[in-house]
Amino acid sequence: MNYFNPKDTICAISTGGNISAIAVIRISGENAIEIINSIFSKDILNASSHTIHYGNIIDNTEIIDEVLVSIFKDNKSYTGEESVEISCHGSIYVQNKINQILINKGCRNATAGEFTMRAFKNGKLDLSQAEAVADLISSESKAAHQTALNNLRGGFSSKLQKLRQQLIDFASLIELELDFSEEDVEFADRKKFEVLLKEIKSEIEKLIASFKLGNVIKNGIPIAILGAPNVGKSTLLNCLLNEEKAIVSDIAGTTRDAIEDELNIEGYKFRFIDTAGIRKTKDKIENLGIGKTMEKAKNANLILFILDPNGNTTSQLHNLNKVKKEVKTEVLVVINKIDIKSSETLKIKDPVLISAKQNKGIETLKNRLLNCVNNKLFYNNETVISNIRHYDELQLTLYEVNLILNGLQENITGDFLAVNIQQALFHLGSITGEVTNDTLLGNIFSKFCIGK
Amino acid sequence: MNYFNPKDTICAISTGGNISAIAVIRISGENAIEIINSIFSKDILNASSHTIHYGNIIDNTEIIDEVLVSIFKDNKSYTGEESVEISCHGSIYVQNKINQILINKGCRNATAGEFTMRAFKNGKLDLSQAEAVADLISSESKAAHQTALNNLRGGFSSKLQKLRQQLIDFASLIELELDFSEEDVEFADRKKFEVLLKEIKSEIEKLIASFKLGNVIKNGIPIAILGAPNVGKSTLLNCLLNEEKAIVSDIAGTTRDAIEDELNIEGYKFRFIDTAGIRKTKDKIENLGIGKTMEKAKNANLILFILDPNGNTTSQLHNLNKVKKEVKTEVLVVINKIDIKSSETLKIKDPVLISAKQNKGIETLKNRLLNCVNNKLFYNNETVISNIRHYDELQLTLYEVNLILNGLQENITGDFLAVNIQQALFHLGSITGEVTNDTLLGNIFSKFCIGK
Repeated sequence: MNYFNPKDTICAISTGGNISAIAVIRISGENAIEIINSIFSKDILNASSHTIHYGNIIDNTEIIDEVLVSIFKDNKSYTGEESVEISCHGSIYVQNKINQILINKGCRNATAGEFTMRAFKNGKLDLSQAEAVADLISSESKAAHQTALNNLRGGFSSKLQKLRQQLIDFASLIELELDFSEEDVEFADRKKFEVLLKEIKSEIEKLIASFKLGNVIKNGIPIAILGAPNVGKSTLLNCLLNEEKAIVSDIAGTTRDAIEDELNIEGYKFRFIDTAGIRKTKDKIENLGIGKTMEKAKNANLILFILDPNGNTTSQLHNLNKVKKEVKTEVLVVINKIDIKSSETLKIKDPVLISAKQNKGIETLKNRLLNCVNNKLFYNNETVISNIRHYDELQLTLYEVNLILNGLQENITGDFLAVNIQQALFHLGSITGEVTNDTLLGNIFSKFCIGK
Repeated sequence: MNYFNPKDTICAISTGGNISAIAVIRISGENAIEIINSIFSKDILNASSHTIHYGNIIDNTEIIDEVLVSIFKDNKSYTGEESVEISCHGSIYVQNKINQILINKGCRNATAGEFTMRAFKNGKLDLSQAEAVADLISSESKAAHQTALNNLRGGFSSKLQKLRQQLIDFASLIELELDFSEEDVEFADRKKFEVLLKEIKSEIEKLIASFKLGNVIKNGIPIAILGAPNVGKSTLLNCLLNEEKAIVSDIAGTTRDAIEDELNIEGYKFRFIDTAGIRKTKDKIENLGIGKTMEKAKNANLILFILDPNGNTTSQLHNLNKVKKEVKTEVLVVINKIDIKSSETLKIKDPVLISAKQNKGIETLKNRLLNCVNNKLFYNNETVISNIRHYDELQLTLYEVNLILNGLQENITGDFLAVNIQQALFHLGSITGEVTNDTLLGNIFSKFCIGK
């Protein structure tokens, strides 16, 4: 257990600790206000909750800084404890000095996530909500932020709690049977229980399936850029990223390694993967690159297949069909080099026409990407899980639910069912923190920022 | 003029913009509360000043974050305008999104230092106090922090204002004479004026002299480490800095470049300068290094002269005396290598005995350094200037004061005196901002953090 006495009054610089216009130092615990009062130029012992006080932080007789002190009382703070926030000048010296004075006066430096852990322990948040706080802080895109905020606001928790409550109700009937085991009665209607379990199973499976999306949201939507050598894949990538990331030359086969880069389009994080051109070649290294390309294409959420109408179109269309056949990923066809007059018209349904070199059609391409995402990925507003711990616990719950369902079909007795029900409840409960232990908490909160 | 309409409501992320537990976005201007009210889940139009409100930031119907909103009204804000601070989750996405929403609702991104400039324009701070805010934020040591805080609290300003007022009183008498110029009267007592001017001159000279100290406080107190080759100068430096900064070997003459590094001892920033050993040598590069050593020694505030009692003590003592003679800087003699038994006892008054290699006596050395600083540098609590703009304006004021004094001795007429008095008033006034222009303000505030 990494956590010290939960009765300690804790403090931390919550705004990162770098030089900035202002910095905020957060204090929480039963002596928070008393400690601040002892170093503040005004008496704030009887100040109301949610009020702000201007004054000086004083170390013995020395004035350290002019600050604003915010007071939180009566269980109405983030942690559920008496809390104070000091808003001071953002010099590194001042921040550290005030923190040091607080330590001298009896505060302890908060461990990572300790404020949120206290919020959890005081019932202000459940565990999955607390974890959403960390996800919210680290979210880099609109989609990741929405998922985290939804979870923080309890969307996921309430769903789980409903499932869990139904299971508990049933479990208590089963337990009742056990008390009367000698009389061979069945209080719990097995048929009803089976229906309930199948509902629970379906819900859990949906949540588990949402993890793939959750992961994509967290890490970016992978988009593979494919096409024959020299059709302008790297030029397109550069154009999208607005910087010279890929090595661009007009010698076919320049790109061998799969290059990845991220682009945020209207709040969605895309992860673009440039690939080696697909063609028959005797160059061993390049062939390795092409194998990698097909692999990347399989793992992507969308393939941008680039065609050059001035190149060998027969071969390009052949490869396009091959990719469509071998890889299940959706393909968006992009015709590049529209700045050069072409003798041929490619028969492609609804392609995106661009000139990567002249930066033409790029906005249209971005919109098409967004459409794909909105239609295929975010088609509904269902709860999305993005936390691997939740994913694991849901898998374990599903495993137990399946065992119970099998048991029901084989007519096994209540005492055996009860064991699996308890296990299922345990795993569901450990997501929201109804069931927990200190090691687990230590693991979860150690990944937080200091000061949160 | 870099500044936009001063009537605009401005906003900025004031906590650095990096990922952190919490971030603060500051809004100031006549529409601040109205704008926040339009994106906040609670009605705060009639909220009292200095109160905190918990709720959601909402963009159309989409919840962006759960935040705390602090209200400042009735001229009781930092800027003197209606102001609001939003304390949100410190994700980069959330910070930027909220800032963007504020822009959409009619705020403008604040330019660097614009909040403080508004505080100045609204009479909450004078110009030298405003400049002290920037110094306070960038202060890295106790001494720099104290100087800045003292100036922020108006120590320097009130001194200047007193001088300036006396000069103004006298100037008005002189102006009166000009109105009655045909009658050849003298309302202004020339003798009294001379006494006053001499007082002012002496004050200004003190302030100018304090700039050397102010500069030292800002940039660190330069301490040169001198001594014969191989007495352990670099080892001492490493020992002080607790890291392997200097190349240490036992081949005499290893250190050629003057190495600088900083060490904060009890809030004072010291800048240690390691130097090439002083000895007669034919190595051209090393000779250059020794020349540099003497130069560095002259510019330092203190010289640590290291002696090795096991080396050639005659030569070492000879060089010590030479340095004492050639350089005016104070010398603290340090006898190193006390771990090795020496045949000789060096007759030095009150040396510091250390073994850099065994990390012995280092605390004593640090205390001696602190004593020197406290006795020689900070012997009084006088106002210290550390801002080059103030230094320049004081020099210009002094120039005018000397002209006036000369003029008095040469009995020149009031109209000529008046010109120089106005010039002196102009320069004094431009320090505190009584006299100012937009270009000057632009220059000053552009050096601030965004959000301050």
